[in-house]
Amino acid sequence: MVFTTDFGLVDSYVGVMKGVALGINPQARFIDLTHGIEPQDIGQGAFVLGVNYRHFPQNSIHVVVVDPDVGTSRWPVLISTPHGQFVGPDNGVLSRVLSDYLEDIPDTGEKADLPPGVSAVRLTNEAYWRHPVSDTFHGRDVFVPVAAHLSLGVPPTELGKPIDSLVWLPMLKPVVESNGVSGQVIYKDVFGNLVSNIPAALLSDHTSVQVSIGGQTIEGLSRTFADTGSSSAASLIALTGSHGYLEVAVPRGNAAAVLGIDTGDLVMVRYPDGC
Amino acid sequence: MVFTTDFGLVDSYVGVMKGVALGINPQARFIDLTHGIEPQDIGQGAFVLGVNYRHFPQNSIHVVVVDPDVGTSRWPVLISTPHGQFVGPDNGVLSRVLSDYLEDIPDTGEKADLPPGVSAVRLTNEAYWRHPVSDTFHGRDVFVPVAAHLSLGVPPTELGKPIDSLVWLPMLKPVVESNGVSGQVIYKDVFGNLVSNIPAALLSDHTSVQVSIGGQTIEGLSRTFADTGSSSAASLIALTGSHGYLEVAVPRGNAAAVLGIDTGDLVMVRYPDGC
Amino acid sequence: MVFTTDFGLVDSYVGVMKGVALGINPQARFIDLTHGIEPQDIGQGAFVLGVNYRHFPQNSIHVVVVDPDVGTSRWPVLISTPHGQFVGPDNGVLSRVLSDYLEDIPDTGEKADLPPGVSAVRLTNEAYWRHPVSDTFHGRDVFVPVAAHLSLGVPPTELGKPIDSLVWLPMLKPVVESNGVSGQVIYKDVFGNLVSNIPAALLSDHTSVQVSIGGQTIEGLSRTFADTGSSSAASLIALTGSHGYLEVAVPRGNAAAVLGIDTGDLVMVRYPDGC
Repeated sequence: MVFTTDFGLVDSYVGVMKGVALGINPQARFIDLTHGIEPQDIGQGAFVLGVNYRHFPQNSIHVVVVDPDVGTSRWPVLISTPHGQFVGPDNGVLSRVLSDYLEDIPDTGEKADLPPGVSAVRLTNEAYWRHPVSDTFHGRDVFVPVAAHLSLGVPPTELGKPIDSLVWLPMLKPVVESNGVSGQVIYKDVFGNLVSNIPAALLSDHTSVQVSIGGQTIEGLSRTFADTGSSSAASLIALTGSHGYLEVAVPRGNAAAVLGIDTGDLVMVRYPDGC
Repeated sequence: MVFTTDFGLVDSYVGVMKGVALGINPQARFIDLTHGIEPQDIGQGAFVLGVNYRHFPQNSIHVVVVDPDVGTSRWPVLISTPHGQFVGPDNGVLSRVLSDYLEDIPDTGEKADLPPGVSAVRLTNEAYWRHPVSDTFHGRDVFVPVAAHLSLGVPPTELGKPIDSLVWLPMLKPVVESNGVSGQVIYKDVFGNLVSNIPAALLSDHTSVQVSIGGQTIEGLSRTFADTGSSSAASLIALTGSHGYLEVAVPRGNAAAVLGIDTGDLVMVRYPDGC
Repeated sequence: MVFTTDFGLVDSYVGVMKGVALGINPQARFIDLTHGIEPQDIGQGAFVLGVNYRHFPQNSIHVVVVDPDVGTSRWPVLISTPHGQFVGPDNGVLSRVLSDYLEDIPDTGEKADLPPGVSAVRLTNEAYWRHPVSDTFHGRDVFVPVAAHLSLGVPPTELGKPIDSLVWLPMLKPVVESNGVSGQVIYKDVFGNLVSNIPAALLSDHTSVQVSIGGQTIEGLSRTFADTGSSSAASLIALTGSHGYLEVAVPRGNAAAVLGIDTGDLVMVRYPDGC
């Protein structure tokens, strides 16, 4: 059982979910992908899950709880894909997993129709929930009990009713222009590295690039955090990070602190060679 | 082995305890209920353990280390209850577990006599400790080795000498008045939700309630964090939280920050219907 | 698999490494010694690993990732010792483990020759790595895959080429003087306790000591955090901590905050009895 939540590790919420799972399946094993999603930030949860879930075995059961509308009309769902099953709220937090299988990205405001090979159920069978069900902690009372029963072999169709579409979270896409790309910072890690939404594929065809961020311009891409290259701001570097996206970093330093910028801020890439 | 400590996760204390346990029982498994108890806050440790331990299987072995007087005359103890065994210091941190079994709550300053069905030993058999025993880290040298041997089947009476009372930590109880209840904030979670010591049972019989906190008045109870209801402070809501107590929250926000209050601050409930 | 890293627990890096390990060895088990090493602080990583690794079983496989020069010419290595195997970068982070086996400490700038009983390989066999190998996250792509294959029984000589020396990190040693010892604060824990580099052995032969730190003088050693003894600064105490080194603490308080000092600051011990 792999967890992605915004619960943090200071409170007891995560420990309690594992206790409940062990009460159902004493052999359950747990990996924390992260509990450090910003509180109630569905978009960040979708990003972190989406870029990382393929690092786990294909038979993994993911429990995803970034759920500001817990207890309201949003449904709990279970999605089965060729690379893992996912239990969580149908609020868009699973959109980036889904997008790996979609041929056409839905318009804003639309739901996403399930592609071939992906199935989903709305979790309606309360016999597999913990009772009494609270209105504020479905991680403990709905998602984890369902995931634990799933790990024991209960089939998805026993846990709920098949559905054919899911809530879709529009994703910030970089804008490709004639001589470059405009994107945004979408994640800031604990080292202060700034992860953008500009995928490596948009950089790799070009012999030289200029990266502009926070009023600074970085000339060329570095390969490693220790490779400072040449840059107008000597300490800043740009590189393809381990998530597969353009990152801006300060070797042995903290780019977010140096630049004073945060998620949502602009990153621009120019191709001076005109290619 | 389920851990509740104030060690945090930055230092190596928690990892070292698990290493020591594996040296005794290579099959030991670990769940962290939390290591985020405020340093040396026995009362908070007692609360978090007390409201959560029943979410774990009945055969769980809990290791509880909030122990500012480590190395002094306070004794290490093991308590066996119908719902889990608990290893830790006899400093009151186990009081809320014990209170689930007591018919009469002790007066302040008294010890608690063990009720039927609950037994305890003072851990005196140093053969089951790690040597040399430090004076400052009994989690590593006493509690975890004892818990690991217990998990291998060593009986409690082999680990120490039976005792018939335990140190009692007086608990802050809400005061029931003719037309309401006065309580306190006893826990603040990572979302800024303020958990009070007013149990849900004192609210559920009333058709309407007013909750006063930090100079604000909240009219009525919400059911979920997304259900804002009507309130003089539009963003504040009151609801029965997942711990089973009255909570004050700000939907998609942080009530502790909005109100500028903390644990120990006053929460008052009024029943305007006079019931 | 025991982890010591500077990745923190907010991001997904730690979870991803465990996912990759499970993909290679589905039976792998994980203990986090700590992920709280200060970012890129090789010396702190070396200290925390060095004082704690013996608390783990002798057949443990440690994955150590404090690696500011990831992707450059520093080599990934595997060290096999009588008390555990260690996978990580050859940047000195393993120096304190190695020093337990060395008869002569190398001079600054020299490499350390491997002592009898300790062997090492430079990890060169990319068949046991995850591909594509990123330039910035060898924890995921090199160290953990190698450790997972090692846990399945692949011999070290299959994973790389034997080497006979390792990068050495000069360690801050206390200076023994005619009437005392001068040392430094090398670690500050979450309670604010200040751990020095003065080992307990340098204190235990003396009937009385004076400890000077941050302009304060502490008379005598306490045995526990609750034992305040006599001190010019009433709230400060000095004691032998659980790491085996002189610590300075404030009972039920935070010595680092009270003194306003940090790692690197001076600690002096005087023997007033002249011994």
